[in-house]
Amino acid sequence: MTVTRKLQGVFVPNLVPLDARGEIDEPELRRYVDWLIARGAYGLYPNGSTGEFLRFTAEERRRITTIIVDQVRGRVPILAGAAEANTRETIRACEYYSTLGVRAVAVVAPFYYKVSPNNVYAYFREIGRNSPIDVTLYNIPVFASPIDVATVQRLSQECEKIIGIKDSSGDLAHMMRMIEAVRPIRPDFSFLTGWDPALMSMLQLGCDGATLVTAGIAPELTRKIYELTTAGHFDEARRLQYRLLELFDTVMNSADFPEGVRNALRLRGIQTGFGRQPLADEARQHMAAFDEKLKSWLPVENQ
Amino acid sequence: MTVTRKLQGVFVPNLVPLDARGEIDEPELRRYVDWLIARGAYGLYPNGSTGEFLRFTAEERRRITTIIVDQVRGRVPILAGAAEANTRETIRACEYYSTLGVRAVAVVAPFYYKVSPNNVYAYFREIGRNSPIDVTLYNIPVFASPIDVATVQRLSQECEKIIGIKDSSGDLAHMMRMIEAVRPIRPDFSFLTGWDPALMSMLQLGCDGATLVTAGIAPELTRKIYELTTAGHFDEARRLQYRLLELFDTVMNSADFPEGVRNALRLRGIQTGFGRQPLADEARQHMAAFDEKLKSWLPVENQ
Amino acid sequence: MTVTRKLQGVFVPNLVPLDARGEIDEPELRRYVDWLIARGAYGLYPNGSTGEFLRFTAEERRRITTIIVDQVRGRVPILAGAAEANTRETIRACEYYSTLGVRAVAVVAPFYYKVSPNNVYAYFREIGRNSPIDVTLYNIPVFASPIDVATVQRLSQECEKIIGIKDSSGDLAHMMRMIEAVRPIRPDFSFLTGWDPALMSMLQLGCDGATLVTAGIAPELTRKIYELTTAGHFDEARRLQYRLLELFDTVMNSADFPEGVRNALRLRGIQTGFGRQPLADEARQHMAAFDEKLKSWLPVENQ
Amino acid sequence: MTVTRKLQGVFVPNLVPLDARGEIDEPELRRYVDWLIARGAYGLYPNGSTGEFLRFTAEERRRITTIIVDQVRGRVPILAGAAEANTRETIRACEYYSTLGVRAVAVVAPFYYKVSPNNVYAYFREIGRNSPIDVTLYNIPVFASPIDVATVQRLSQECEKIIGIKDSSGDLAHMMRMIEAVRPIRPDFSFLTGWDPALMSMLQLGCDGATLVTAGIAPELTRKIYELTTAGHFDEARRLQYRLLELFDTVMNSADFPEGVRNALRLRGIQTGFGRQPLADEARQHMAAFDEKLKSWLPVENQ
Repeated sequence: MTVTRKLQGVFVPNLVPLDARGEIDEPELRRYVDWLIARGAYGLYPNGSTGEFLRFTAEERRRITTIIVDQVRGRVPILAGAAEANTRETIRACEYYSTLGVRAVAVVAPFYYKVSPNNVYAYFREIGRNSPIDVTLYNIPVFASPIDVATVQRLSQECEKIIGIKDSSGDLAHMMRMIEAVRPIRPDFSFLTGWDPALMSMLQLGCDGATLVTAGIAPELTRKIYELTTAGHFDEARRLQYRLLELFDTVMNSADFPEGVRNALRLRGIQTGFGRQPLADEARQHMAAFDEKLKSWLPVENQ
Repeated sequence: MTVTRKLQGVFVPNLVPLDARGEIDEPELRRYVDWLIARGAYGLYPNGSTGEFLRFTAEERRRITTIIVDQVRGRVPILAGAAEANTRETIRACEYYSTLGVRAVAVVAPFYYKVSPNNVYAYFREIGRNSPIDVTLYNIPVFASPIDVATVQRLSQECEKIIGIKDSSGDLAHMMRMIEAVRPIRPDFSFLTGWDPALMSMLQLGCDGATLVTAGIAPELTRKIYELTTAGHFDEARRLQYRLLELFDTVMNSADFPEGVRNALRLRGIQTGFGRQPLADEARQHMAAFDEKLKSWLPVENQ
Repeated sequence: MTVTRKLQGVFVPNLVPLDARGEIDEPELRRYVDWLIARGAYGLYPNGSTGEFLRFTAEERRRITTIIVDQVRGRVPILAGAAEANTRETIRACEYYSTLGVRAVAVVAPFYYKVSPNNVYAYFREIGRNSPIDVTLYNIPVFASPIDVATVQRLSQECEKIIGIKDSSGDLAHMMRMIEAVRPIRPDFSFLTGWDPALMSMLQLGCDGATLVTAGIAPELTRKIYELTTAGHFDEARRLQYRLLELFDTVMNSADFPEGVRNALRLRGIQTGFGRQPLADEARQHMAAFDEKLKSWLPVENQ
Repeated sequence: MTVTRKLQGVFVPNLVPLDARGEIDEPELRRYVDWLIARGAYGLYPNGSTGEFLRFTAEERRRITTIIVDQVRGRVPILAGAAEANTRETIRACEYYSTLGVRAVAVVAPFYYKVSPNNVYAYFREIGRNSPIDVTLYNIPVFASPIDVATVQRLSQECEKIIGIKDSSGDLAHMMRMIEAVRPIRPDFSFLTGWDPALMSMLQLGCDGATLVTAGIAPELTRKIYELTTAGHFDEARRLQYRLLELFDTVMNSADFPEGVRNALRLRGIQTGFGRQPLADEARQHMAAFDEKLKSWLPVENQ
């Protein structure tokens, strides 16, 4: 049983297309979902950092997930970002997403405030005890309070509902320490990396999968690297991993995250619109300067 | 005219008492407002970092401000934290608070995501152009994207509605650079420090006032330091500034911010309840260990 | 006795003029010493960070101090930087400088390696116990292992030879905490700030003096601010403190520290030569672009 | 020709045993050299960070290298740390080591001072142009000014004498960017990682080798991981990489770096003595508490 439930493969932390008024563009979001699945996305992850969860209202976050669930119709598993204003609101979001039939929710550690490790533990313990649906921890120390190894170990021991972690630190040693500390006691616990440049290396070290910014732009490529690596074809996997880094660097250098993702997707034919964070003229020009490089890169993946 | 409108004195970034169920404790919040005004608060500042704006829903943030406005009844000016999920929601909050009759709103720079300076500028420009009410920038680089000197200067030049900045960096040089860059072109622009240990020094360097965590615990003391410093009584001001640092350090070391403020207020007789971020047992014990020190400190200020 | 011995006033962390071959330019160094004393330097501080102690050999460091002592001939006190490769070499340097008749030595905390607080304590304790001459601690956390408040307190209690600290952190709260912790038990202990933008504020909070980069360029100005502040003329002191910040920013922005100091001194007529760290062409051009601004600034101080 | 010259395998940044008076223990150093070679060290690297180059005098650094060269007698290549007080002294050290017949020198980027990228470039260019012996760049951003990708690319293009880089950042993406930028134009350029937890991953991504702290404690293990990985036996390599991380974490957590290495070596029978940085009593006790764990770990590698 456990084996079939484990989160695996490369999830897409999917971005939300917006229309000219800045509202959720539902038809394009539905088209984007199909586009991703057709190109090999293993799963979707609404309301993540790439999905700009913080720039939508609580109602919009629910609507985004509802649309995606409806469009996916069970073809791939969904990991729904459920972080809300406080523990109670987050648990309510877990309850709501549970009724939609998503595979699990993902909850980022407390952010803005710096919360110390034992209170990060207390936060997730309360969620883990009260959520009716499986929970994935989300560690992204550049944006939120870090989740340390001891915390992951305690939570995995005490909360059956907590079934995995997405770790975007990109720190190999940290991932290895977590795997070493948790896998013996919770073989079903899933380790997903959120750091694109380390996809191949993290899989080789024992990660179960990933949720990657670039998977939303080039799902064919991230799927290929996953398949090649898990099949032991490292030379070809390495070649593609270098290609992926190039895409990642180009997108990240083109604009404040995640506006560069929005732009790259436009070049692939998804009408993502402009994000809700206003862009200065200089920022727009800077971003446009990367279009040629991106265009020359992207078609190769389309072949 | 300008003189009477300028923000001055020490504002209280007021915390919100919660009841046993974690709901806003309206009677105690009203009592706390009166308590603060009776002890010398120059103004109130709901929905700041100390006010845990992020841990309330959008509806609760409006309710908190509404209660405070109603309780204050014009006795002191109110600076309402208006940061919402995105630019449009923030502008809507500005519109709403405008109808309540607050003095101005305060808007923190974009957080979670790292927004580069020119996009921070674009963000505030859009708010400055569309807000019906005066806007105060809020720079708190440990929690949010920094607002640099050039950005403050551009915004002060281009947006009349932007009338001041609360700067919690505690960086003397940064404050001086801002004053140097802005005061000649906008003499009405107000500079408020948000760094308690630097209150006296910042005032001596030309700041107009402050919004301080400790002002919510010992408003008598912060008022006294403000009065002594602006009157040129530096020896006595310095003595009290050292006392204030002691209180600040004790509160900040006792718990993750702002739970230590909640605890210190309990010792002064305000029933603040426990915050919405769960506390680990170790954290509660750690906090309790500071009670004696706080108690021995606080009565002195009550004399 | 103690009163007369206490370090006070603004010391100059003096730079070393180099000739065209990169060797110590002794005649110009002697001329610079006289120039500084004529313009109001309270004391000199060879082998500090501005003096690029690390870019000279151990022999050169001794020679620099010997030249300066000889040129000063007792007119002002000298604080000699004595940090060497290890504790024993540092103690030998203390012994050597002791024979020259300098007022005290200054020893930076261990650098390159990150040394934890209790080992920083062990390091200074060994020096404090074995030095035949008074020792000043030197805290500069951007370059070296930090010296925390508890360490300063323990050292001040246990080592009579340790008589002060130069703190370049620029952190007001840190300085206040040190003064609070040490002054009651060691009233003779001297607190010198090494952060130019905070000179006036640090003096007002109780510092005894400073050692400032800008004091090597405009000793008249730093002396004036010291005198005005200690005499209670704050309005004029503040005006000059803003001027000092402008000089500091211009120099620091013009080049990697301390090459900008070298350049500014050239504009004041001291033939400092070029430093031993090679400069890229772009760096030279960047530095030259600040010359006009510096020239327009410096003459005012010469009036 | 080029192929045979390329730096490959795992070098040992070897520590220097000290006697009871803190002097270089030459007999034990010689014994340690033989011990390392017997257990599989591919090469030695005196005067690195683990070798505490900064805590020896310039004369001692030369003596250390001379002893090692004499003891090695050509059995393995030697990479001699040559960073001295300034560019000219460093070039003189290059000249000296050149006469000893070492394979190459390694030069760390300027430290203490923060040197900007174009001046880091200027520094290494001057060394690259004047050194009579091959030079390896040494990037260790936690201790010294970082060497960025563009700098490595320019230097590899312009200076034939610069033949490789040791990079201790542990950043996979940074390593990949360097390899991508340099390998096409300089196939002979060698990339060595200095981050123990990433040994296997870095080799899989194309690194030529490593210089690792743990290689000085368990050279059998690092050699085995190198051999298994380059031979494509990843499952066994991964198992040992997890073992290596355990050793690395234990050593690094036991004391300020590199005193924990000294201690671990004592447990393997090398009389390393105590380092020149004094240790507080608490630090000694803390270190001793790791002995049991280390002893239980080390014998396995001795089997």
